[in-house]
Amino acid sequence: MKIGIFDSGVGGLTVLKAIRKHYPNVDIVYLGDTARVPYGTKSKDTVIRYSLECAEFLREKGVELLVVACNTASSYALEVLRSRFEFPVFGVIEPGVEEAVKKTKNRKVGVIGTPATIKSEAYQKLLKFFGNEVVAKACPLFVPLVEEGILNGEIAKKIVEHYLSEFKDSGIDTLILGCTHYPLLKPVIQEFLGSVEVVDSSEAVSRSLKDFIKNEGEGKTELFFTDLYQNLDFLIELILGKKITPKLAEVEIY
Amino acid sequence: MKIGIFDSGVGGLTVLKAIRKHYPNVDIVYLGDTARVPYGTKSKDTVIRYSLECAEFLREKGVELLVVACNTASSYALEVLRSRFEFPVFGVIEPGVEEAVKKTKNRKVGVIGTPATIKSEAYQKLLKFFGNEVVAKACPLFVPLVEEGILNGEIAKKIVEHYLSEFKDSGIDTLILGCTHYPLLKPVIQEFLGSVEVVDSSEAVSRSLKDFIKNEGEGKTELFFTDLYQNLDFLIELILGKKITPKLAEVEIY
Repeated sequence: MKIGIFDSGVGGLTVLKAIRKHYPNVDIVYLGDTARVPYGTKSKDTVIRYSLECAEFLREKGVELLVVACNTASSYALEVLRSRFEFPVFGVIEPGVEEAVKKTKNRKVGVIGTPATIKSEAYQKLLKFFGNEVVAKACPLFVPLVEEGILNGEIAKKIVEHYLSEFKDSGIDTLILGCTHYPLLKPVIQEFLGSVEVVDSSEAVSRSLKDFIKNEGEGKTELFFTDLYQNLDFLIELILGKKITPKLAEVEIY
Repeated sequence: MKIGIFDSGVGGLTVLKAIRKHYPNVDIVYLGDTARVPYGTKSKDTVIRYSLECAEFLREKGVELLVVACNTASSYALEVLRSRFEFPVFGVIEPGVEEAVKKTKNRKVGVIGTPATIKSEAYQKLLKFFGNEVVAKACPLFVPLVEEGILNGEIAKKIVEHYLSEFKDSGIDTLILGCTHYPLLKPVIQEFLGSVEVVDSSEAVSRSLKDFIKNEGEGKTELFFTDLYQNLDFLIELILGKKITPKLAEVEIY
């Protein structure tokens, strides 16, 4: 079985890693839209257009199931993708929310993400539907921080403090990392928030696929990116824990 | 006379402002490629392709002279643009270097910019050609910091310190801000570096045009952007000091 995953950049590799762990035999084609990253500071129309183009690229590669690893694209483009393509399309919002709902005891849940993800209210609506109070906050500097490889130290701590201090007295007992880049900052975030349960949705996404994936195939992993920029090899190895040579993707523009 | 200016985003508005001050009557069409910002972390091939597309958009608007306000595009795409288009094409590297050469007394000049600008060595080569020692450094977090509107305070200071501390003992007496976003951080940079002369090339760019511009026209300013994201109106007013409604640009993709 061939699975497609796309993300605005390298962050979705955290989702790929979790899926690969659970389904070692499937073939995976990953597309990172590094030529147009980030999505999270761009408008809904632009995010939908980019998402359609990424999905079309993966359709041409013959994928039978699509995972939208990008939270921004999951927030804005999931319905359009489901109406345009015949294969099943999975996002990261619902699994993340399910995971948080399982973990919270006081039903006060925080969520952080890009400006677009937070503005879409996709997480907030679903969390409220399940009866939770929600505190949401956009953290636009986290993505460039991760892309720059600054994952700890004083700057990372100051920026985490800048965005997350309002969560300290908010009474939340669970925080959703609503962006695939953020798990790389989890140690600093966890240290700052102390006893709050920090939910990384990549594991939850992987579990949400279990009724739809047959663990059959050659276990191949292909990584495509729309731009092969200089930090790419470093970040692939950092996230996946092994070297895989990225290929340049030529994405058809609608 | 109609002048075109393009940049990867809003930063080039600092160049527009300087040009407008010197040439109040010309008509200016500005294009900010906000759907694909930033350029400075992307590869040479991608930056060249995007630059050609931006220039073509402005050619169709009837511009008679093109200013590439983006340092990354100036570093990588100037020659290609000059060979493809008939109107004169001006970049920001040469004027910035000229300005620094005038100001330095000890011929030790620093330059900061995006990873792509610094990697291109465009500034370094030209500064060395004029007999200067050069210290160069990429500052990838400065652009998202400005786009996020964090222009002072503790985080801005920490990040400035992170990137610029090596300039403190380097002996440079002049520093070029090799990115159109950076002038917005100039107060923090200047405070950190003390007596070092900080060169913002937007004024120099404007002066470099003086033999090519006729100050004739209706004084119109049109602002186009490839994505109308949420911070845009705020940033336009912050940089230009007045409100101008941005229009959506549909850029033909090569």
